[in-house]
Order: sequence, then C-alpha cells, then structure tokens
Amino acid sequence: MIVDSAVYRAGTRVPLDVETADLAAMRARCGAGEFVWVGMHAPTSDELEEVAAAFDLHPLAVEDAVSAHQRPKLERYDETLFLVLKTLWYVDAEDAVETGEICLFVGPDFVISVRHGEGGALRQARVDLEARQAVLAHGPSAVVYAVCDQVVDGYEQVAAALVEDVDEVELSVFSEDRTNDSPRIYVLKRELSEMRRAVHPLRDPLGRFANGTVHGIDRDAAPYFRDVTDHLSRTSETVDELDGLLSTAFDAHLARISLQQNEDMRKISAGAALIVVPTLIAGVYGMNFDHMPELHWQFGYLWALLLMVGTSAGLLWFFKKSGWL
Amino acid sequence: MIVDSAVYRAGTRVPLDVETADLAAMRARCGAGEFVWVGMHAPTSDELEEVAAAFDLHPLAVEDAVSAHQRPKLERYDETLFLVLKTLWYVDAEDAVETGEICLFVGPDFVISVRHGEGGALRQARVDLEARQAVLAHGPSAVVYAVCDQVVDGYEQVAAALVEDVDEVELSVFSEDRTNDSPRIYVLKRELSEMRRAVHPLRDPLGRFANGTVHGIDRDAAPYFRDVTDHLSRTSETVDELDGLLSTAFDAHLARISLQQNEDMRKISAGAALIVVPTLIAGVYGMNFDHMPELHWQFGYLWALLLMVGTSAGLLWFFKKSGWL
Amino acid sequence: MIVDSAVYRAGTRVPLDVETADLAAMRARCGAGEFVWVGMHAPTSDELEEVAAAFDLHPLAVEDAVSAHQRPKLERYDETLFLVLKTLWYVDAEDAVETGEICLFVGPDFVISVRHGEGGALRQARVDLEARQAVLAHGPSAVVYAVCDQVVDGYEQVAAALVEDVDEVELSVFSEDRTNDSPRIYVLKRELSEMRRAVHPLRDPLGRFANGTVHGIDRDAAPYFRDVTDHLSRTSETVDELDGLLSTAFDAHLARISLQQNEDMRKISAGAALIVVPTLIAGVYGMNFDHMPELHWQFGYLWALLLMVGTSAGLLWFFKKSGWL
Amino acid sequence: MIVDSAVYRAGTRVPLDVETADLAAMRARCGAGEFVWVGMHAPTSDELEEVAAAFDLHPLAVEDAVSAHQRPKLERYDETLFLVLKTLWYVDAEDAVETGEICLFVGPDFVISVRHGEGGALRQARVDLEARQAVLAHGPSAVVYAVCDQVVDGYEQVAAALVEDVDEVELSVFSEDRTNDSPRIYVLKRELSEMRRAVHPLRDPLGRFANGTVHGIDRDAAPYFRDVTDHLSRTSETVDELDGLLSTAFDAHLARISLQQNEDMRKISAGAALIVVPTLIAGVYGMNFDHMPELHWQFGYLWALLLMVGTSAGLLWFFKKSGWL
Amino acid sequence: MIVDSAVYRAGTRVPLDVETADLAAMRARCGAGEFVWVGMHAPTSDELEEVAAAFDLHPLAVEDAVSAHQRPKLERYDETLFLVLKTLWYVDAEDAVETGEICLFVGPDFVISVRHGEGGALRQARVDLEARQAVLAHGPSAVVYAVCDQVVDGYEQVAAALVEDVDEVELSVFSEDRTNDSPRIYVLKRELSEMRRAVHPLRDPLGRFANGTVHGIDRDAAPYFRDVTDHLSRTSETVDELDGLLSTAFDAHLARISLQQNEDMRKISAGAALIVVPTLIAGVYGMNFDHMPELHWQFGYLWALLLMVGTSAGLLWFFKKSGWL
Repeated sequence: MIVDSAVYRAGTRVPLDVETADLAAMRARCGAGEFVWVGMHAPTSDELEEVAAAFDLHPLAVEDAVSAHQRPKLERYDETLFLVLKTLWYVDAEDAVETGEICLFVGPDFVISVRHGEGGALRQARVDLEARQAVLAHGPSAVVYAVCDQVVDGYEQVAAALVEDVDEVELSVFSEDRTNDSPRIYVLKRELSEMRRAVHPLRDPLGRFANGTVHGIDRDAAPYFRDVTDHLSRTSETVDELDGLLSTAFDAHLARISLQQNEDMRKISAGAALIVVPTLIAGVYGMNFDHMPELHWQFGYLWALLLMVGTSAGLLWFFKKSGWL
Repeated sequence: MIVDSAVYRAGTRVPLDVETADLAAMRARCGAGEFVWVGMHAPTSDELEEVAAAFDLHPLAVEDAVSAHQRPKLERYDETLFLVLKTLWYVDAEDAVETGEICLFVGPDFVISVRHGEGGALRQARVDLEARQAVLAHGPSAVVYAVCDQVVDGYEQVAAALVEDVDEVELSVFSEDRTNDSPRIYVLKRELSEMRRAVHPLRDPLGRFANGTVHGIDRDAAPYFRDVTDHLSRTSETVDELDGLLSTAFDAHLARISLQQNEDMRKISAGAALIVVPTLIAGVYGMNFDHMPELHWQFGYLWALLLMVGTSAGLLWFFKKSGWL
Repeated sequence: MIVDSAVYRAGTRVPLDVETADLAAMRARCGAGEFVWVGMHAPTSDELEEVAAAFDLHPLAVEDAVSAHQRPKLERYDETLFLVLKTLWYVDAEDAVETGEICLFVGPDFVISVRHGEGGALRQARVDLEARQAVLAHGPSAVVYAVCDQVVDGYEQVAAALVEDVDEVELSVFSEDRTNDSPRIYVLKRELSEMRRAVHPLRDPLGRFANGTVHGIDRDAAPYFRDVTDHLSRTSETVDELDGLLSTAFDAHLARISLQQNEDMRKISAGAALIVVPTLIAGVYGMNFDHMPELHWQFGYLWALLLMVGTSAGLLWFFKKSGWL
Repeated sequence: MIVDSAVYRAGTRVPLDVETADLAAMRARCGAGEFVWVGMHAPTSDELEEVAAAFDLHPLAVEDAVSAHQRPKLERYDETLFLVLKTLWYVDAEDAVETGEICLFVGPDFVISVRHGEGGALRQARVDLEARQAVLAHGPSAVVYAVCDQVVDGYEQVAAALVEDVDEVELSVFSEDRTNDSPRIYVLKRELSEMRRAVHPLRDPLGRFANGTVHGIDRDAAPYFRDVTDHLSRTSETVDELDGLLSTAFDAHLARISLQQNEDMRKISAGAALIVVPTLIAGVYGMNFDHMPELHWQFGYLWALLLMVGTSAGLLWFFKKSGWL
Repeated sequence: MIVDSAVYRAGTRVPLDVETADLAAMRARCGAGEFVWVGMHAPTSDELEEVAAAFDLHPLAVEDAVSAHQRPKLERYDETLFLVLKTLWYVDAEDAVETGEICLFVGPDFVISVRHGEGGALRQARVDLEARQAVLAHGPSAVVYAVCDQVVDGYEQVAAALVEDVDEVELSVFSEDRTNDSPRIYVLKRELSEMRRAVHPLRDPLGRFANGTVHGIDRDAAPYFRDVTDHLSRTSETVDELDGLLSTAFDAHLARISLQQNEDMRKISAGAALIVVPTLIAGVYGMNFDHMPELHWQFGYLWALLLMVGTSAGLLWFFKKSGWL
C-alpha cells in the first residue's frame, strides 16, 4: 500500500495535479534538483513491482524488500542505494520487543521507503522533515537521515525500556523473596540478542555515511549522520552492558538459591533437633526397667515434660548463639 | 558415477551426438563461449582420474575431491578454480544434522561438480538453471552461483529446523516437569558446532565472489553472489545466536534443578515434621510414670489422637502461611 | 552558569575592562596569539546559545553539550574541535561511583568548557595552569591537556578506591563467616562497567593527541598527552583486572557456599546419629518381652543410660577420627 | 647422533666415496643444483657444533636446536632459514599425548634436520621422498615440505585419537552410571592445550610457505604447502571444537550430578517415609492409656501390622503416581 | 643511590681518574664510540635530578622513573629512548610473586638504569656483559639487550615456579582428601594476572627491537632481541595456559564438592536406615496388645535383637549391591 508520495523542490512539497499513485508520471515531472519520496507500507509483490518498473529498481533488491526478515545492510545497484534497517518497538503490555523492517531505495531523484511491521511508522518523520526546509533541501540524503534518525531513536527507547526491566530483575534477584528469576533473565537475554541483530550490522553503513564516503549521500550531511552513529554506538554499548549485567545477575541468582538452601537446611535440622531430643527422653521413660526411680516420683511426669522443654530451649539458645540460625 | 554431463551454449543445452561419458570428445567439440558441466556423485578414484585427464585437473585438487572430509575452501591452480563446500541436511526421523560435500572444478570452458553424501543433490539446481537462459548464459559462473545458492539454501533450512529444536528445548527447560535437558542441549550444541564448520570458512570465498575480485568468476554475477553471501551471514548469525541461547538455557536448566531441589527439600522436611511430631506425642504417652492423669481419662486415647492430628494440621497451616511450602 | 572567563596572552591572564559575561566583546579584543577560556557549569540552553553565537559553535555540538549523557568522543566541526569526557568521582559515604561530563569546544583562539554534574570542578585545573606560564603559553592545547589530565587523575582515584573495595570483598569471601557477598560483587561489577564506559572510548582521542595527528592540538604537547594516555591505559588495565578478579572471587564464593553446605550436612548427620542411636536403645528396652534379663537388673536403668552415652561417645570419636567432622 | 646424511642431485641420492660423517668434505663436493641433507637425532652440543661449523650456522639458532622446548617458529639468519616444529604422538598405553621437536636449518645447498624426543622419526619421510624423484628435484624445499607434511600428519593422528577420547567421555557423561568424569575431562583439556601450543604458532610459517613469499622456499612448491596448511587448519579447528565440546560435556556432567542428587534425595525421603510412618503407628499402640479398644482385640496385633504395611504401600503408590519417584 | 657507573670503549671498561659520582665530567670525557653506563637503585628525586641534568633527560621521563608503578613501555624523547620494564621474582617462603621496576634511559653515548624494588639486581648482568667484549662493543644497545634478557629470564623463572604451584593445585584438586582449593586458585590467578601486566605490554617494544626498526638500537642486535622476544612469547603463552588450566581445575574442584556431597548424602541416609529400621522393630515389640505371641516366647528378646541385626545387615548388603554405597 502506498501511504504517501510527493515531489519535493528546494525543501518544500510541490503541489501536483497527477494521481499520487501514478508514479511514472510523477517521476517524469520531476525536474533538476527535485525528487520524489514514495512511502509504502507492507506492499504486495505486485504493488512493489509497479514501483520498481517506474524507478528501474534491481530485481534482487525488490525481492529483498518484499520478503521481510533481511539483515540490516547497505548495497549499491548502479546508481541506486539499497538500505535495509530493522525497526524495534517495545510492547508494554507484554514486556516484549517486536521487530519490523524498513527498506530504502535511494536514487538521485527519488527515495522509496518500504516498511514492514506494525511499529516504526514514518508519518511523523515526513512531517518533521517537511517542517525543516533547510534540511530537506539536501534532497534524498535528508530523507535517509530522517529515517535513520527515527529508527535509531526507536532503538534508544527500547534500550531504555530494557534498562528498566533489568533494574526490576536486579531488585528481584537481591530481594529476600524466593523468586525464580531465570525465565525472566532468559527472555531479556533473548531480546537483547534480537536487538543486537538489529543494531550491530547497521554500524558499518551509518559509519560510512558519517565519513561521507558513500556516493549518493551528500557529504554535507555527514555531521548529521555522525550524530546518529553516536546514538547507535551508545545503544550498542548499553545492549552489551545489559547483557553483562544479566549474566552477573544470573550468577547472583544461583548463589542466592544455594545460600537459601543452606539456610533452609540449617533451619530444618534445628527444627528436627527440637523434636528428636524430646522423643529420646520420652523413649527413655518408656523403658520397662524394674528400677527406675523417676517413674515413681510424685511429679515425675511433670519432670519429664520440663526436661523435654528445657533441652529444646537449650538447643534453641545454642543454635542462635553459635550462628547456626 | 557421472550423473549428467552436457555442453551449454548461450544458456541452452546443446544436443550432442557423442557419448555423454566421452568427456574428452565432449570438451573438444566445445567452441568459444560454450562450456561443459559434468556432474558426478561419489566417484571412484578411477572415474575421477579419467575426468581429471580430460580437463587437466591438478593432482592435489583431485586427491581432495576423492577423499571427502575437506574444509570449505577456494583454491586456484593455474586457470582452474577449486571450490569445496559442505552440504548440510536435517534428518527429521533422528533430529540430526548430516553432512556431505560438493567440490567444484571451474575452468573457462568447464565445470566439474563432485558430490559426496546422500543429501544436496544438484539435479534440481541444473533443471532450474536450464530454465533461466539469461542467467545460464553467464557460463561457468552461473553454475557456481546455482550450486552455492542451493547449498546455502540448505543451510538456511537446517538453521530453521534447529531454531525449532531450540524452541522445544526452551519449552522443556521452563516447563514444570522434571526433565533432563542437558543431553539434548549437548547434542544441539554439537550440531551447531558442525554447522559452524561448514558455514564460517565459506564466508571468505563467497565474499570474494561478491566483490568480483576472483579471476574466472564473472564480475556481472557479483550482485547474485552478494545475495548468497547475505543469506550465509544470516545463517551464521542464527547459529551464533542459537549457541548463545542454548548456553543461557543450560544455565536456566541448572538453576531450575537447584530451585527444585530446594523446594523438594522443604516439602520433605515439612512431611517429616507431620510424622515426627505425632511420634513424639505417642512417645510421651508411652512413658511409664505412675502418675500420668491423661492415661486414666475416659477419652484419653481419643485426646491423644486428636492432639496428634491437631499439631500436624497446625504445622501444615504454619508452613503454608510462612511461605515454606 | 559561566563560572569564569578570561583572556590569556603568552601564558598569563590579561586583565580586562569588559564585563566577563560579554563574550563577543571579549573575543573581539582577543589579538593574535591570545585566546579566551570560558568555563561554564550546568548551563541552561539559553546561556549556551549565547556562547555558541559569540564563538560560531555548530548547533549539533551545542545540542550535545546541553543534554549530558553523551559518550566520550572527539569531533571536528570546521575549525572547531568538540571533545566530550566523562568525569568520575567516588562518594565514600555510599561506596558509590558517580559520573558527570565535561564538553570542550576548542578553536584557534578560544576554549569553552561545559561541565555537568557535581564532581570534576575545573577551578583547580585553571589555577594550576595559570601558575605554569610555560605550559599555558601553548594556547588552547594547554587547556585541553590540563582538563584531560585532571579527568584521568580522577579516574585513577576512583580505580584506587575500587581496588580497596575489591580487597574488602576478597577478605570477606575467604573469611570463615557466613557472608553473602554476591550483592557487593554485583554492585562493584556494575561500577566497573560504568567506569569502562568512561575510560575506553577516550583512548582513541587521547591516543591521537599523543601522536600529534589532530589538527588544532599543538604537536609540541604530544609528550604531555602521551603521559595522560599512559595513565588512562593503566586505569583501563586496572579496571579489566578487577573485573576478572571479581569473577574469580564470585566463583570462590560459590565454592565456599557449597563446601559449607557439605560441612553443615555432615555436622547435622553426626548430630542426628548422636540422638537416634540412644533412641534405638531406649526403644529396645521399651519392648514388652516377658523374658528380658536386663530389665530386672538392680542397675539396669543405669546400664541403659551408660550404654546410650557410651555409643554416642564412640560415634563421636569415630566421626572425628575418620575425618567426617 | 647423525642418523643419515646424503647428497642429492636432480632428485636422486648421489653415491659418495667420502665418510658420511665428514660433512665439510661432503658439502665441498656439492655442485650446483645439488644439496646435502643431514639428519640428526638428539645430538650433543659438540656434535651440533661440528655441523654448525661445516655449514656456517648462526650460534643463536644452534643454541635453540640443542635445548629442546622451543616454540614453533620460522627465523632467517642471512641465507639460512631456521624452522622449529613440535612433534606430537599419542601413547595408547597411557592415553597420553607426548611431544618432541624438529629443528630444520635450510640453506641453498643443505638441509639439517635435528630431532628431539622418541616420536616423529624422519626415516620414513626420507625413504618416501627418495621414491618421488620429481618432488625431491625441487631441492631443500622438498625436504621442508616432506618434514612439515609428516609432522602435520602426526597432528591429525593425535587429533583423531583425542576425538575418540572425547567420544568416550561423552558416553560416560550421559550414561546412567555414577561416574566422576572431571579428572578425565581435565586431562583431555590439558592435552588439547598442549596441542594448541604446537599447532597455532605453525600456521604463520606454513601460510607464508603456501603464499610463496619466503625467500629460499621454491615458489613452485606453494600448492604442496597449501595442502599442508589446509590439514593444519583442519586440525586446529578440531582442537578448538573438542575444547568447546569438553566444556559443554563438563557442564552436562555437573548438571547430571545435581540431578542425581535431587533424585537420590527424593528416594531417600521416600524410603524414610516408609519406615517412619509405621514407627508412628507402633508408637501409638505403645501408649499406655487405660482405654484403648484395639489393644484388646483378638487380632489387634495383626491389625497393627497390616495398618503399617498398608500405609507404607499407600505411600509408595502415591509417590510413584505423583512423579516423586 | 648510584650503584656503579663506568665508561666503556670498544667493549671494555675504561679506567677513570674522575669521581664515579661526577657524571657530567664522566660524560664530557666520553669520546666517539664510547658510552657511560650509570646504574642506580631506588634513587631519591634529587639524585635523579642530578643525573637528568648531566644527560639532558626529559622531565616527564624523569618523573616516571622516580615514582615506580609505571606500565612497561617504550618512549622516545628526541634522541633519548625511555624504556620501562617490570621485574618479577618469586619468594619461596611465601609462595608469592613480587614486582619491581627497571627504567632505562638510552642515548647515543649513555645508558642510565634506574631500578626499584628488592629483586632484579643488574650487578650480574653488568659482570656478564663486561666478560663478553664482542657483545658489549655494540654500545648502549648491548646494555639494553643484557637488561631485557635478564628481566625476561626472571619471568621464565617465575613462570616455572607457578607451573609447579599449579601442579600442586591439580594434585590437591584430584586427591581424595576434602580440601578447599579455591583460595589457592584465587591467589594463583591473581599472580598470573599481575604477571600478565608485566609481560604483555613488553611484547610491542621488544618486537620492535627485534625488527630493527627502533632508531637508536643497533640493527645488528636484532637476532639477539628476537631471542628475547621468543622467550617472552613462551612465557606469555605459559601464563595464558596456566590461567586456562586453573579455570578448569576450579571447575573440577566444584564438581568434586558436588560429587562428595552426593556421596556423603548417600552414606548418611544408609547409616540412618541402619538405625531407623531396628527402631521400628523395637517400636513394634513395644506395643501393648494383649495378644502378641512373640512377647511370650522363651527367646523372644533374642529373636527381636537378631531380627534387628538381620534387617540391618540385609540393608547394608542391598546398598552395596545396588551401587548406592
């Protein structure tokens, strides 16, 4: 589905009399210094073929753009750049990270953006860009910047959400409660791993934009891409750091289980002693010897009960004092 | 065994009047812009020697092609390229990954493919290629591409099967059942390790094809090899990711065993308390003191039994309330 | 807030008749070989905008300088260098590492330092520098050196504090007490990870200063920067080493828990034996057989009690001798 | 001790009238295109000095060749190459890997091979080489190739033996028996580590021979060295893979111990229940209440025994059903 | 403190009529091809200042030489090289590795060696060097070689001592005794980590000497430095290998604790069974039923005792047979 398409001249949207969907006509009317930006969302194979025909896109790239699940990458087909980015967003309801994809075809006089997945809509990026005429005047490079910027912003938001999740895990691991934190840690590690797949392969293309060494991307835009690269690096470091923290938190979780087991074992054995010792006393006074003076005492029974309570109390005091409990 | 051999001209199979097995004659009739593709499966040393004689193959390369179990690699002997690929396929019945091997000898006017192992047959690749005249017209490079593409497709299928296996392991690890997941995890790790041996060494040769820097491989085919390289990278990342997930899953498995042991221990001790405390009471009323009023009560026996049940019930309530159970 | 601003000529502060805050005027009066150093602390966006206007700073850099939480980095915008450093300081009261940030804008005739956070004040660095006329005569490079030197000194102090913390953890891990060291280890690992984020990205810019390859930094200052780089490397190695030691200490902690559990278990079982064996003896003499000679002995009861004590003492001796206790 | 020495011309051994031990005379008679190969085993310092004098060997290299325990390395002293290789062989009787060393001095007209240790004798290599006149005609390079080939073959045999050992460990780890596999795993890891010390440093020299970039080694021999390099890489990968598998096997071993402990604990507690519950029943009927109807029943005793057996059987059934056993 | 200072000409010590401590005079008398070697031990700041003045040493280097605790490094200040090395020695009495430091200032006509710490005295190196005139004739480079050689020799001795320590730990870990090996392993890891700090940073300077690419170090000395580099690499590999072995040994230690706990638990439970079962029998014959035939048997008591012994013996036999004990 074509979401929006427009011709831009010197940083402003040009009002057109042709059908927005008639891309070939649109491109034909595009003069020097002008460019078309076509935005598509989850296009069918046929829709994309039509666009490909109008802009002479390479079939291999088009194939990649139809079937999502590509790796982030930058490729050149003659005069056209083909950039694939993973989009990430955090679904609060499920504490889960979801992924989508944006493919950009960038030519001297056009940008085609193809988006897959629910999140990462480019509506806002287009609106913001149209509001910054000076930036948009840089042509297709400006669109590439705007898209990269938004995608990387998305990464930072997801990273921030994961930082909070890791903080929660930490609290849980170091709380006194008997919690089973390993499934949570596993899920977070899995999400970090997914995030890494989105973030890491993007560093190379963005770095090349930032160095101004990619033909087709305006060298003047380099500082802007450097800014995006910087955010990407920060996210990447956060991801690595969180992963390390989760590993340490997991180890601490294991240590806590062991410690708790040790404490439980000591509690159990102390509890057992408090019952078994009186049982021994009861056993002694249950013996059938002819001559057992206590059995005939007036308060023998009371004596036995007090003996039981007394030894138990003594044991309890001893356990506390010796640090066993 | 020679499975099939044919001469191709401008992307189409040339009908021949010579014996398919008479390779020297075949090659002699091969004009400019034509090439022979000989496909062999598990050839004997003698069969391969014959082919080697017809196409002037280097003895060291031929030796490698006879005895399977080579590493994936690309070597040049004068005008001939020698490419070794590992084939992988998943045997559902045994949840196991099996491996084979394909060796390619690529000259200006011939391709010899030598396959070992059950899986990875090239029949379909030849049929598909013969149906795409434009691609096949690129000559031997097209065959190399078709073979690499099929092999890497095979890797992706195996990777997909392993992803499912890891998902099953995850379910098992985080289920409530008492499962012993470590043998399964071990086997999967072993298979990933085998897969890595097939995938990693192939990245360099494919990357060089994709850069168009290999003499003897058509530069125009570079985008196609870039596509294959891309799939290979994705597989490689999947393998690394699965390996990481399995390690984490194993740790979670260990943590679950510890947690379960802890819970079992608490259950056992609680169960023991429910028996030992009544035993103490029975012991007390089994004492032989002369003066024990309860012994002479009308309902003394009932009183003792109720006391037993009561303390046990009280303990049970206490264990539940305090979070011990 | 502008903390201090001054014009320096040939290494000495020039008395000025203009308002310190009127930066444009200040800069205008700056002759050849002179430079302005403006020091700001936690400036508002407006304050920074004003400075930016007076010194033609690039908007992207200014934006970075307002919002703290940047990565350490060195960037060039035309003739201006933009350097970001993380400051670290150790808060004894909380055994915690806190972080701030210093951004430097360095032009041929000015240095703007923008500091965020409580620690890392540059007051002392300015005073020291003004006292070393020969160094300060190198111009803006001298200021960059002084700031880097102070920041890296701060890292070394924090590293020294962490070394002490790790020593304490070691003592605790290898003491005989039942301590739970994993939270402490976790917190220290987290702080080391934070420290690494400050230290590692700084190595590249400082290394480039030390090689004298950064346009705008005086080549004669290279040995001084080499000195700072050296301190940074040492800190970086200390951080990595502490991290490794903490991992090993954690493992030792786990091993100690296991050993203790083992010892506790042996103690418990020995204790149980000392009670259960006499209970058996009591049970035997509680049997109701008609013919049990001991029951009728004069000192049968004493005999039974001695038997109980004797077997317990024997067991205790046996446990000690066999290394069980 | 000089094991053998001969002059070779055009790939064949030249019959000589001088004493084999008179090396200076031998070398003097060596014409253009001829070379001497002196083979020594565990020479004394004096023997080696003599050879060194005859062939002008560098004292530092000679010193290295006397005292074994060098790292594998390739060094150049003027026109002489000095190559050190570790030999490895597997002693079945002890399941142990043993190491020796071969040093080669290679000049334009001579090769001196110095061997230390029991294994890795070069007798067979010389015989094989003399049988392949075409190869031997390449001069000293052929000897270097033959020695490297034999040494790396030895690595492959050791690797194959270790693969079997690891398979045995796997079987043991995943068997039902209570085995202590960690000493075995430790020893294997230690042997792999030793093997790595032999294999890894050799990759660089062999790679340089295979590229034909070492002055003094015939460029035409490059494909042969490529073959050896390939075998070395395969061995190196096997070693790394085995190491990884052993780590995983060790983890699985730990997991099995934990699981077994858990099962044992459940068995023990179930067994305890089967004894303790009847003991409670016995305790109840051992109470001394005046009014306990069962005591006076005709078959009260039988009733009590049946009650004991019944509850135990019930418990057993319950444990089985609930998955506890 | 100046330990010794002398002028050398063509490899021999020149007798001097000036005060050894009057360095400026000494240097002034130093003709072409002559050089001074001043050896200092733990000099005060003033002593070093004096030397620095006589030889025009750079203040930053002098500062580093006063305060020990530098990283090993090689720096150039104009014509003077500044080399820092860590010295290591093993104190048998404490099984501990101690560290010192040697700084070398190397100019065309002088070497100043500054040593800190107890160990690593250079007396012997000077004596040895004076005995090898040919080597010493190379000038300052010979001194650098002699010092590096001695320092690296020291590393090898320490490494050998640590190898023995690790062997002891191995024996202890795999012995049958209940040992707590983790503190020892921790200390060894800490020492290896310290050693790594001395060894690793030295590889780069020594490698550059060995390549002959350092201006001021005689290219003819390259083979000698290659020898030292080789020893350093071997030490470095030993350190890494020991570290890996200790990690594995630690894991084996953990596994042994777990296994022992498991065995202890089985022993305890078997022991308990041997007591609890007779207790049940005693309980049965302590019941008060009117009709219990055994109670009235002539040898009822004996029967009961035999029954107790019999069941215990049976259990013991069963435990042994089933592999439980």
